[in-house]
Amino acid sequence: MVSRLMSDTFTHFDAQGQAHMVDVSAKSETRRVARAEGRIVMQPSTLARILAGDNKKGDVIGIARIAAIQGAKRTADLIPLCHPIPLTRVTADFVVEGDDTIRCTVTAETVGRTGVEMEALTAVQVGLLTIYDMCKAVDRGMTMEGIRLLEKEGGKSGHWRADAA
Amino acid sequence: MVSRLMSDTFTHFDAQGQAHMVDVSAKSETRRVARAEGRIVMQPSTLARILAGDNKKGDVIGIARIAAIQGAKRTADLIPLCHPIPLTRVTADFVVEGDDTIRCTVTAETVGRTGVEMEALTAVQVGLLTIYDMCKAVDRGMTMEGIRLLEKEGGKSGHWRADAA
Amino acid sequence: MVSRLMSDTFTHFDAQGQAHMVDVSAKSETRRVARAEGRIVMQPSTLARILAGDNKKGDVIGIARIAAIQGAKRTADLIPLCHPIPLTRVTADFVVEGDDTIRCTVTAETVGRTGVEMEALTAVQVGLLTIYDMCKAVDRGMTMEGIRLLEKEGGKSGHWRADAA
Amino acid sequence: MVSRLMSDTFTHFDAQGQAHMVDVSAKSETRRVARAEGRIVMQPSTLARILAGDNKKGDVIGIARIAAIQGAKRTADLIPLCHPIPLTRVTADFVVEGDDTIRCTVTAETVGRTGVEMEALTAVQVGLLTIYDMCKAVDRGMTMEGIRLLEKEGGKSGHWRADAA
Amino acid sequence: MVSRLMSDTFTHFDAQGQAHMVDVSAKSETRRVARAEGRIVMQPSTLARILAGDNKKGDVIGIARIAAIQGAKRTADLIPLCHPIPLTRVTADFVVEGDDTIRCTVTAETVGRTGVEMEALTAVQVGLLTIYDMCKAVDRGMTMEGIRLLEKEGGKSGHWRADAA
Amino acid sequence: MVSRLMSDTFTHFDAQGQAHMVDVSAKSETRRVARAEGRIVMQPSTLARILAGDNKKGDVIGIARIAAIQGAKRTADLIPLCHPIPLTRVTADFVVEGDDTIRCTVTAETVGRTGVEMEALTAVQVGLLTIYDMCKAVDRGMTMEGIRLLEKEGGKSGHWRADAA
Repeated sequence: MVSRLMSDTFTHFDAQGQAHMVDVSAKSETRRVARAEGRIVMQPSTLARILAGDNKKGDVIGIARIAAIQGAKRTADLIPLCHPIPLTRVTADFVVEGDDTIRCTVTAETVGRTGVEMEALTAVQVGLLTIYDMCKAVDRGMTMEGIRLLEKEGGKSGHWRADAA
Repeated sequence: MVSRLMSDTFTHFDAQGQAHMVDVSAKSETRRVARAEGRIVMQPSTLARILAGDNKKGDVIGIARIAAIQGAKRTADLIPLCHPIPLTRVTADFVVEGDDTIRCTVTAETVGRTGVEMEALTAVQVGLLTIYDMCKAVDRGMTMEGIRLLEKEGGKSGHWRADAA
Repeated sequence: MVSRLMSDTFTHFDAQGQAHMVDVSAKSETRRVARAEGRIVMQPSTLARILAGDNKKGDVIGIARIAAIQGAKRTADLIPLCHPIPLTRVTADFVVEGDDTIRCTVTAETVGRTGVEMEALTAVQVGLLTIYDMCKAVDRGMTMEGIRLLEKEGGKSGHWRADAA
Repeated sequence: MVSRLMSDTFTHFDAQGQAHMVDVSAKSETRRVARAEGRIVMQPSTLARILAGDNKKGDVIGIARIAAIQGAKRTADLIPLCHPIPLTRVTADFVVEGDDTIRCTVTAETVGRTGVEMEALTAVQVGLLTIYDMCKAVDRGMTMEGIRLLEKEGGKSGHWRADAA
Repeated sequence: MVSRLMSDTFTHFDAQGQAHMVDVSAKSETRRVARAEGRIVMQPSTLARILAGDNKKGDVIGIARIAAIQGAKRTADLIPLCHPIPLTRVTADFVVEGDDTIRCTVTAETVGRTGVEMEALTAVQVGLLTIYDMCKAVDRGMTMEGIRLLEKEGGKSGHWRADAA
Repeated sequence: MVSRLMSDTFTHFDAQGQAHMVDVSAKSETRRVARAEGRIVMQPSTLARILAGDNKKGDVIGIARIAAIQGAKRTADLIPLCHPIPLTRVTADFVVEGDDTIRCTVTAETVGRTGVEMEALTAVQVGLLTIYDMCKAVDRGMTMEGIRLLEKEGGKSGHWRADAA
């Protein structure tokens, strides 16, 4: 569902179709929050190993959480037209689903002139990639699925919430 | 399907369960290739706009391709236990599927002591995120799906190929 | 022409001649804009190829534009005494002049405590270097010329405009 | 003058006109050197101040040299299709010309599969920009001119030398 | 001495013990300053060489000062849970003590929602490491000692000052 | 103790005293290892909290280990005259000493043309800084001490080992 206030043009291009970093200087500095998620699906035996390590050794999820938070800070380096944003909060949660899936949910926040959707999504991607990296020696077939924005608040376009999946 | 030569331990942890960047100094420098893919699913009207822009203005896919290639070069910065790798090739292809999907496929290559799976996967993620960024003003509900390794060649563990999806 | 309000000392050095990142904490956060330009001169046959590619394949200028925008964001990493600045806008325009020249003009903007002249100049340099990189296989003799600040607005030193070239 | 071995296509695009990081995995690891130059033109009074500072305080040129060397190492981050290259040498020399000009000459070297022209040129640009940054409070009208490759050695295309300026 | 206002919990972990970048969005933007120091101890002959070079050639301390300032800007890249902070001032002073020691003191400042202690400490570390790097060919046994926060001002926890060493 | 083969000049400066990244292109690619250490001294109550968290929540040391490994990869970005080096191994160990100290020891390794002493030392510094960051809310007076090279192997200057502390 597209919000009423959603633009009907690609704002990252000007009238001539040339890419630019859009002007946000006239926007007010407000509190902006975004929440994104994604999951990685693996063999049940791979998940069992991760969970075994979580308590006593080999903390895959703890490392993925750190990577996700650091990834959020690299968003403007990675995504060409993103504004650099002084993040004021990043949290990354990982929950196990069934016997073969880990879901990562990230909340990013700033007090700024533009939103933090990309920061939240980038953090999810880097968190999942880090799990892949640490487990790939035993399971190269892991797949990352359903990476999407869940919710955003703040700014002119207001509150947006994804449909239930 | 797991290769016979696949490890049965998480190599990124030592015997005490502590994370490390694994020792690859004794591995030989060989040609190593990895291919990964992923897709982004959107509203048909969003895809129609992207395609309209591809020829005359607003080249979303051209920008995503550049971001993917640059993303491959940032892999060791993003993924904590990845070795820095002198990439010798990166290509990123984007193809349209049906009326709502763009699939991104990346091939990465090096002549080195360790594989480039993470470089290929990171490039796919950054490529898809860049499409999301440029189109989010019209479609916040886009979802990234099926990000996975397709194939790897070179190194001790040999040739690996994903099952057909 | 030097503005009346221009300093008569090198502000990047203290009274003992030691370099520092100058204190801007007492400056007010105001809208600041800078515009810079530069050009790359090449063989007419090289320019002809670039123009041929612009419409249907091999979009040299489109890639240079992205690199310029990303380069602006890396300014504080590259220039030792630059303050990190949350850019609120970057645009990069490329125009053809005669049969052998491309001119790049960048506008950078922030709402902050210090100006964005270096961001605009760095973006021009990276944009021109990217054109060089993509065309060097056919023309190593390309030269970059006339990289300069055109105009700046905002801050205590006020409006400054370059003399006509 | 274009070398006989110079390509007649833009190698950074494939047959479909899509940008890629070109495959250099089959190239041999050889010693490769590049030399580039550029100059910054300023008011004579600005140059006089720089020279006054060089001995006792405010070492503008010393800082520009460090920035140039560090800039060479960031080339693959800045230029989208550049390969990451393990540089084995970078030197940056600055000489005064007349009463208003500083010329910067950089030599970069590697033992690798592709050349270091871009590293030498990027270092020159960052060196000149750093001089601009440190002197801009007294002279915003400085101009950077004549940034170009002087010479390259090594690799399949052999020795190339610019015409005398 | 621990300030009365000092927290009695590790704020970088939530109630479940999971690391996060703590929420500072409700904190007010105030002027915040931090001062840190550290020293490097070397052979007297090594210090003598550094001092000999300081005036006429081989300016070790000048280069270390630049590296320290640039290091302050990289803090959020290096320290996983640090917020990105728009620094408004960084100074780095180096003084000789006795015949074998250089002490580095850094002052960092921002107008922001969180303090700059880590920026000051990181700058000290990078400054000392740079001295080590430049002198290691003659003295590998140099040791870095006493790296610590000296003072911080601003923010809810107020003024803090280290005990005399 | 200084090795017999240790240089008696500062190799990072040329005959004119100008800094450069020294030429290592003629050096052979050999296996090179470096080991460095440092410690952070804190209040016993701070150490007690860290140890309490290690098992069940708030894994300070696990996060510091990841930061140290990532820090090693950023060395050439931070230290101006360091060569970029393709690290082939990094390990970081943290041990508790007495009731108030954590010692960090890092081993770095490459197969390359120059040593990895700076990578090992940088990793130690970043690891210690990360502990400081996570504990500073309860103990701002922590001090980092004894950061030094323990041992290096490989290259022309051969094996070097620090005197016992």
